[in-house]
Amino acid sequence: MRAVRMHDYGGIDVLRVEDAPVPEPAAGEVRVRVVGAAVNPVDWKIRRGYLRQDIPHRFPLVPGWDVSGVVDAVGEQATRFKVGDAVYSRPDIARDGTYAEFVVIRETELAAKPRTISHIEAASLPLAGITAYQALVDIAQVQPGQRVLVHAAAGGVGSLAVQIAKARGAQVIGTASGANRALVESLGVDQFVDYRREALAPAVREVDVVFDTLGGDVQEASWALLKPGGVLVSVVNPPPQKRAQAHGVRGEFLFIGPNATVLAELARMVEAGRLRPVIGAEFALRDIARAHELSESGRARGKIVLYVGTP
Amino acid sequence: MRAVRMHDYGGIDVLRVEDAPVPEPAAGEVRVRVVGAAVNPVDWKIRRGYLRQDIPHRFPLVPGWDVSGVVDAVGEQATRFKVGDAVYSRPDIARDGTYAEFVVIRETELAAKPRTISHIEAASLPLAGITAYQALVDIAQVQPGQRVLVHAAAGGVGSLAVQIAKARGAQVIGTASGANRALVESLGVDQFVDYRREALAPAVREVDVVFDTLGGDVQEASWALLKPGGVLVSVVNPPPQKRAQAHGVRGEFLFIGPNATVLAELARMVEAGRLRPVIGAEFALRDIARAHELSESGRARGKIVLYVGTP
Repeated sequence: MRAVRMHDYGGIDVLRVEDAPVPEPAAGEVRVRVVGAAVNPVDWKIRRGYLRQDIPHRFPLVPGWDVSGVVDAVGEQATRFKVGDAVYSRPDIARDGTYAEFVVIRETELAAKPRTISHIEAASLPLAGITAYQALVDIAQVQPGQRVLVHAAAGGVGSLAVQIAKARGAQVIGTASGANRALVESLGVDQFVDYRREALAPAVREVDVVFDTLGGDVQEASWALLKPGGVLVSVVNPPPQKRAQAHGVRGEFLFIGPNATVLAELARMVEAGRLRPVIGAEFALRDIARAHELSESGRARGKIVLYVGTP
Repeated sequence: MRAVRMHDYGGIDVLRVEDAPVPEPAAGEVRVRVVGAAVNPVDWKIRRGYLRQDIPHRFPLVPGWDVSGVVDAVGEQATRFKVGDAVYSRPDIARDGTYAEFVVIRETELAAKPRTISHIEAASLPLAGITAYQALVDIAQVQPGQRVLVHAAAGGVGSLAVQIAKARGAQVIGTASGANRALVESLGVDQFVDYRREALAPAVREVDVVFDTLGGDVQEASWALLKPGGVLVSVVNPPPQKRAQAHGVRGEFLFIGPNATVLAELARMVEAGRLRPVIGAEFALRDIARAHELSESGRARGKIVLYVGTP
């Protein structure tokens, strides 16, 4: 099969489009014929070797851990799906991924693809959607009427976080560059902050929840915006607990895993018109290097998707 | 290039996947590398020869008149787009169409693709979207507060018509089978009618506008639902003027052409989160026969899309 593989950590030149063996599903696993895949920041963090201490990857490695496609073969004891089913997944990041014509995934990590969107849009949802959902629903437990600050609200995760927080009944403040104001407003934010022109304080204050996809200075500036008892959830770097304590708030870090239950909930939200993916850029699999460059630039709006196969 | 061509009118067997010459853009034209295309009922009506009196097609013919893709070459005096631009179109139905790797289109028939959705979703919009928009906005001139009845509200055209009427501030009644209730309600209808279980009258009455994508008995049963001075717009068969006159209403027929102005407005609505395509089925270009079978069955929900190339 055609696949993008890495034989070492490094720059974009380690991403090689080459022939690779078609993987076989073991017990409890299914093989998915990939239609769409997506690029996430974790992909190039792994490519650069940033996570080599945490995740025991072996080379050659097929990166990419977002997929929408069609069940192609079913291993023994795998009973939840049959050949031909349309499915989507964020599979185990320790295994070979989805920049390939076929990927083998544990059936427990798969959910039925949302029926009203294409495989391409569906591929953009799993990793970013699970992240936004778990941060806001499971960790922050956003309640109706609460004030939620979403940083990078035009980004792949932020654009979903805004919609999930709105669906929970929250008041949402979104930050982005002014060029993305119309997009972010279309997602339903109650207040838009152009981070290049406005300081966070005093434009934003007294929030219950901060959703942090940026870390660093932005995270640091966010503590003072929280109400006592509020919570900052970061998906980029673990918040220093001393800072949280000094402000009388909670600081949580989220590094998500596969979660078919959340995927099923996200599919329901999409089909009910309450969640729409935002596609920022589309590439063929062979253009994976350009796709990684765009992701690393931090300038993508919405999600970066890859066209791998046909339905 | 790979293309689906017909060498005669007939059944699905006349759709042949074969090699065809790459077309060259003449003055005022551009060549588009096709990423996504869509199947519309007019495609199989043309395939069967139903429109042979009206449209002077020559064989071999590349059918399909919905496309989203990337500008690949620009003819002389074509200045609106440049190579690499993402565009979408419903091109002139009298010329070779979009079931192909490349299609040549007059630049006046192209618009910039909506930025927040994939080429696959964008390909589903032009023909159906122009149809729904022109019927409701240009012909019926739907006003805020008016009551609009949309037949087949889960279909490719109806699902967009519901959203466009809602965006105009109308009260919308949508009909569909009960299996599509959740989908149709998610599009924003104020009233849902399961046409298999409920008679149109008395469930629906006193409407200002009927949008008819079904014709026949459904059109006939719709006259009595209109207020005096109301309008029925059909996109399938010309309403008998005697019937309209007898009810003191207007009966209009719409057969749309290319319209880049409407495409630009549809793109704005998509980017503003006011219009979302509904994808019902996805096929590879080589599976075009199955795609036509599904379209002819009348059982598709939303739009049928084709994966042709990569971005």
